[in-house]
Amino acid sequence: MLINCAAYQKGRKIADIPVDKISSYIARGDCFVWVALKDAEPAELDVMRQEFGLHELAVEDAHHGHQSPKVEEYGSSMFIVVKTVELVEGALQVGELDIFIGENYVLSVRSHSHQDFLGVRARAEREPHLLSHGPAFVVYALMDAVVDRYFPVIEALEAELEEIEDRMFEQASERSNIERLYQLKRKVTVLKHVVSPLMESAGKLFGGRVPPLFEHSQNYFRDVYDHLYRINNSIEAIRDTVNTAIQVNLSMVAIDESVVNKRLAAWAAIFAVATAFAGIWGMNFKAMPELDWKYGYPTALVLMTTVCGYLYIRFRKARWL
Amino acid sequence: MLINCAAYQKGRKIADIPVDKISSYIARGDCFVWVALKDAEPAELDVMRQEFGLHELAVEDAHHGHQSPKVEEYGSSMFIVVKTVELVEGALQVGELDIFIGENYVLSVRSHSHQDFLGVRARAEREPHLLSHGPAFVVYALMDAVVDRYFPVIEALEAELEEIEDRMFEQASERSNIERLYQLKRKVTVLKHVVSPLMESAGKLFGGRVPPLFEHSQNYFRDVYDHLYRINNSIEAIRDTVNTAIQVNLSMVAIDESVVNKRLAAWAAIFAVATAFAGIWGMNFKAMPELDWKYGYPTALVLMTTVCGYLYIRFRKARWL
Amino acid sequence: MLINCAAYQKGRKIADIPVDKISSYIARGDCFVWVALKDAEPAELDVMRQEFGLHELAVEDAHHGHQSPKVEEYGSSMFIVVKTVELVEGALQVGELDIFIGENYVLSVRSHSHQDFLGVRARAEREPHLLSHGPAFVVYALMDAVVDRYFPVIEALEAELEEIEDRMFEQASERSNIERLYQLKRKVTVLKHVVSPLMESAGKLFGGRVPPLFEHSQNYFRDVYDHLYRINNSIEAIRDTVNTAIQVNLSMVAIDESVVNKRLAAWAAIFAVATAFAGIWGMNFKAMPELDWKYGYPTALVLMTTVCGYLYIRFRKARWL
Amino acid sequence: MLINCAAYQKGRKIADIPVDKISSYIARGDCFVWVALKDAEPAELDVMRQEFGLHELAVEDAHHGHQSPKVEEYGSSMFIVVKTVELVEGALQVGELDIFIGENYVLSVRSHSHQDFLGVRARAEREPHLLSHGPAFVVYALMDAVVDRYFPVIEALEAELEEIEDRMFEQASERSNIERLYQLKRKVTVLKHVVSPLMESAGKLFGGRVPPLFEHSQNYFRDVYDHLYRINNSIEAIRDTVNTAIQVNLSMVAIDESVVNKRLAAWAAIFAVATAFAGIWGMNFKAMPELDWKYGYPTALVLMTTVCGYLYIRFRKARWL
Amino acid sequence: MLINCAAYQKGRKIADIPVDKISSYIARGDCFVWVALKDAEPAELDVMRQEFGLHELAVEDAHHGHQSPKVEEYGSSMFIVVKTVELVEGALQVGELDIFIGENYVLSVRSHSHQDFLGVRARAEREPHLLSHGPAFVVYALMDAVVDRYFPVIEALEAELEEIEDRMFEQASERSNIERLYQLKRKVTVLKHVVSPLMESAGKLFGGRVPPLFEHSQNYFRDVYDHLYRINNSIEAIRDTVNTAIQVNLSMVAIDESVVNKRLAAWAAIFAVATAFAGIWGMNFKAMPELDWKYGYPTALVLMTTVCGYLYIRFRKARWL
Repeated sequence: MLINCAAYQKGRKIADIPVDKISSYIARGDCFVWVALKDAEPAELDVMRQEFGLHELAVEDAHHGHQSPKVEEYGSSMFIVVKTVELVEGALQVGELDIFIGENYVLSVRSHSHQDFLGVRARAEREPHLLSHGPAFVVYALMDAVVDRYFPVIEALEAELEEIEDRMFEQASERSNIERLYQLKRKVTVLKHVVSPLMESAGKLFGGRVPPLFEHSQNYFRDVYDHLYRINNSIEAIRDTVNTAIQVNLSMVAIDESVVNKRLAAWAAIFAVATAFAGIWGMNFKAMPELDWKYGYPTALVLMTTVCGYLYIRFRKARWL
Repeated sequence: MLINCAAYQKGRKIADIPVDKISSYIARGDCFVWVALKDAEPAELDVMRQEFGLHELAVEDAHHGHQSPKVEEYGSSMFIVVKTVELVEGALQVGELDIFIGENYVLSVRSHSHQDFLGVRARAEREPHLLSHGPAFVVYALMDAVVDRYFPVIEALEAELEEIEDRMFEQASERSNIERLYQLKRKVTVLKHVVSPLMESAGKLFGGRVPPLFEHSQNYFRDVYDHLYRINNSIEAIRDTVNTAIQVNLSMVAIDESVVNKRLAAWAAIFAVATAFAGIWGMNFKAMPELDWKYGYPTALVLMTTVCGYLYIRFRKARWL
Repeated sequence: MLINCAAYQKGRKIADIPVDKISSYIARGDCFVWVALKDAEPAELDVMRQEFGLHELAVEDAHHGHQSPKVEEYGSSMFIVVKTVELVEGALQVGELDIFIGENYVLSVRSHSHQDFLGVRARAEREPHLLSHGPAFVVYALMDAVVDRYFPVIEALEAELEEIEDRMFEQASERSNIERLYQLKRKVTVLKHVVSPLMESAGKLFGGRVPPLFEHSQNYFRDVYDHLYRINNSIEAIRDTVNTAIQVNLSMVAIDESVVNKRLAAWAAIFAVATAFAGIWGMNFKAMPELDWKYGYPTALVLMTTVCGYLYIRFRKARWL
Repeated sequence: MLINCAAYQKGRKIADIPVDKISSYIARGDCFVWVALKDAEPAELDVMRQEFGLHELAVEDAHHGHQSPKVEEYGSSMFIVVKTVELVEGALQVGELDIFIGENYVLSVRSHSHQDFLGVRARAEREPHLLSHGPAFVVYALMDAVVDRYFPVIEALEAELEEIEDRMFEQASERSNIERLYQLKRKVTVLKHVVSPLMESAGKLFGGRVPPLFEHSQNYFRDVYDHLYRINNSIEAIRDTVNTAIQVNLSMVAIDESVVNKRLAAWAAIFAVATAFAGIWGMNFKAMPELDWKYGYPTALVLMTTVCGYLYIRFRKARWL
Repeated sequence: MLINCAAYQKGRKIADIPVDKISSYIARGDCFVWVALKDAEPAELDVMRQEFGLHELAVEDAHHGHQSPKVEEYGSSMFIVVKTVELVEGALQVGELDIFIGENYVLSVRSHSHQDFLGVRARAEREPHLLSHGPAFVVYALMDAVVDRYFPVIEALEAELEEIEDRMFEQASERSNIERLYQLKRKVTVLKHVVSPLMESAGKLFGGRVPPLFEHSQNYFRDVYDHLYRINNSIEAIRDTVNTAIQVNLSMVAIDESVVNKRLAAWAAIFAVATAFAGIWGMNFKAMPELDWKYGYPTALVLMTTVCGYLYIRFRKARWL
């Protein structure tokens, strides 16, 4: 679906243009065209391919989707894939933003994502001195918008981790802790595969040999890279912590178990003693003088209570009870 | 076994040719020869070695099979090994496709694989403008076909992982979960050794210093590389998740165990109390006044029931029962 | 908040200057300006941006804070971020020091940190021969001060690790051990993300291609790098040891558990034997001759004691008791 | 001990020569000398050092043995260390083959190894067209022979792993499984330190900057490298799998344990119920009407059996029994 | 404390010289000065700094100690830090050897180490042809001496590991095994941080771009590097094995536990059966015909023994007992 199709000159929009005029505007050379599609149909992509003169392989990638984040040069034009990430009811939803860039055009194709980039265009149009840098700035603005939305996702995952941690040290044997840790790990793994190749790719857009289109906007892409670097560090930290937490949870379960076992052992011992005594005086020997004593029974009860009480105190001290 | 042997000019097949004409067609210089063998006998390979002038070491590799995926230059010709992968009744079956490439020939030798590449040839012959790129395009088409068939394998493994996950959180102590995780890990390890060296090798076919034969098809091989990169990422994700799942399963077993232990402890305690009471009133002391009471027995039963009931409720609250 | 704003010439302070004179002093070219801010307001940063002619993106970073440590070049000027670390009541508190450097100025902005750097300025002013090296030396002095304060933090963490270790081998099942190990791991992870990117960045300030501003102070930055390298090694060692300790703790819990289980098993066996004997002689068969023996009862007691004593000794030998 | 000492010209042996003629044959320049020693004495090595003009440090290495595999250049001559590996009664036996190479000589010194290399010499002498390549080909033939013998070792380890796997899922608690896994891991670690540095070194003998002696035999050393690469991959796979197997075995033990525990719990519960009932009717209260019933006893037995039977069925259903 | 201070010419000592003559001997240019200090006081270091013209930062490092191993260039002079390692009563004691090297001097400062290097000097003086290489050879001799003393430490750690292994498979639950493994891991971690940075640094003293002082002694430093490489491999192998051993030990504890649990379960079952029978015949029902049988009691005993014996045999077969 076509979202937007406009031509810009010196940082200002000169016109919303129809799709079939794109190639002529591109040919003018004194302006650039910025087109935004959403969940594009093959037919739409084909029109774009012809108007912009895009490379077949790049268009095919955009068509199939499910690409890894990447930055590819096709001669003097480029093809960039970034992934959008949203948390929808606790689940991670991954979309895709494919960007085709040439000397005087930018074409963005968004798929499987609720996020829109109208705000990016609006902000860009309010700052003509920046937009006048041309397509490279548009790409920066789009990537920056995508990457900025990673931060709340990371924060949500960190918050979840902290919540699990708090419960872990209170209720280690709670089945849900471990299941949530596992789910968290899976989310972080997904996120890692979204962020890490993008960071790697972004690292090629500044310093060293840079594609000519981005030569004058290196500081901006270094900024994007910095954000990705921080996000990547956070991801690594969460991953590492989750791994540790899983191990620690196992230890906590073992300790819980051990506490229960000790308590069981202690009470079992106390009652076994009582039962053994009762068993002995329950024997049917004829000659058991104490059975005939007047205070035999209370004495026996006192004796049993004393022994059991003594054990109880000892177990208490040993912290088994 | 010879599958196919044909000469192509400007992207079109000019003739199916007999094996002993190969060298003369190659010598013409205005066409290229594309030969496909399957489970080749040493004698067949020897004929090919002479007709194409292949390097002894490469032929030996093709003869022995069980090579790692690789891309090797022998002077101006090249030798490429890729592995085919199929899931046959849940088991991973690994075959091999050895490709010899020269300026005007391609020889592919397939072993231990049910997959055929007739479709690749048919498609290539339908697109003369692509096939006219010569051997490099044929190699791309073959590699692309092999790599495309990795995706369903990956998806099958991911599906299996998800199935195990679902059961893991329900029936942690199921012996089969852990065995299936282990088998999954082994399959992924096999797959990794199929994909990862190929990715590394494919990375040398575009960007930087590229073998002359592939100089004009770099975009295509970058496409193959991208696919391998994604597959490799998926493999890494599965590996990592399986490792975590094995640990998590252990935790779940420990939690299950702990639940059973608590329940055992609770019931043992309840019955130990009842038995201890019964034991006491089963003693044979002469002077045990309560034994002579009219309602001694029901009182005792009520008392025992009350104490046991109290314990039951307490254990319930503590969630041991 | 402005802490300090002074101009230096040949290593000596020539004047405390008002903020609005900064640009004119910078323009003189024969002196340099050293300004220190603390928890700067956006307005203050904006003034600085204008006076020093700072790059927008760097100022934005300083404004937002929460950057990763880094060293960035903006044309001939530079932007450096280092993190300060303090242990406040056992918790790790991370602050930030942003440094803007130009040919004849240094601007430092400190946030979220109780540490001040007045000592750095005082020491620098006492050593004009060093301060005469200009901004690069100031940056070195600041970084050195920050990094020096990492050492006591590392030592505190190492001390805590040793304390946990001592308790771990005595009281493995202590819940607090594992919780403390976990917290220690988290602190070390935080510290790692403070130190490791800084080390990486510092590594670019000496040897190989060095930013022109730092060309003559490479030995100093290598010294900072060395310190960071040692700290990083210590962090790695702690991380590794904590991981091992968590596993070892689990083993110790399992061993403790096993000791308790053996003891439980042993006592249970002993009392079960006694109870079984008592049960047998408690049966109501008419014809049980031993019940009528004169010394039946003491004989029975002796027999039971003997068997139980024998078991006790055997378990002792097997080290179950 | 001297094994062989011969001079070769144009790929053919021209003479077995005495040790003291070596230097004069080397000086001729139109032939090369190939000497093989076994478990060389210091005195023998010293003679060789003088005849061949070897570097002191290389000779010292050969004398001490226990080197890591390596490829070292000493001016125009080279020193190569490879390790031989044999499985002797299940144990890994590591020997060493030190090779000194010059423009027209090869000296190999074998230690602690039952493998001999007479076959290599015989085969080389049968193929004069290859042997005429000179020392580089001899080195290739020796290395190839050593590396070829790694394959059966790897296969033996893989077979052992599979055997352990089979037993692991049947008899997890078998002490020997875990011990064998541990021993397997150790063997693999030894093998890794044999193969991995050699692979690294072999990687320097082709492609990029190659020692002049090997310039014309790069394809051969790439072949050796390929073999080592595959072996290394197999080693990594075994290592990884053993690690997983150790964890999986622990899980299997825990599951076994849990099965036993459940069964124990179930039977304990059933007997505790029976005992409690018996205890109650064993009490000595005067007024226990059911004791006087004619069918009291059989009723009691039926009741006890019914309750126990009910429990048995329930536990069966819950799969505790 | 000054240990030695001498001047050498053409590999021979020409004089023991007083400290205040050092600078004049250095200035001569035809000889070199070799000074050795031990646990140097700040004042001594200051004298050396002036006599040799050392760089302030290097002297400060030597003064503070606790450096990581490193090789640093200060203009044409160099500063090298290596760590000495001794096993004193099973504990690892780490000392430091700081070496300052110039074109015609070597100054070594040893701290916290019982090892002396008089042997190095004596050996060097006995081999004038080597010593005539000048300071670089002295540095090699010192480093070689330090590194040679790592080997016995490694061997001691390997021996300890083997001892623990032997006990581990016999007495898994021995608390000391796991504690010793942990201590071993810590020692190896310390050793790693001693060896690994030194190896890295030594790697810069041969091949590629080498500091001019060492240009003619590259083969020697490659030899040191080789030793460090082997030691490093051994360290990695021990680390890896200790990690595995910790896991294996946990498995062994779990298996031991499981053996004990099975035995407990078996005996508990046997006695529970006996007790249940006894309980039944201990009930006070009037009408229990078997109680009045003449051989009721022995029959009962036989029955109980038979059932228990049957269980015993079954458990034996199932290998629970």
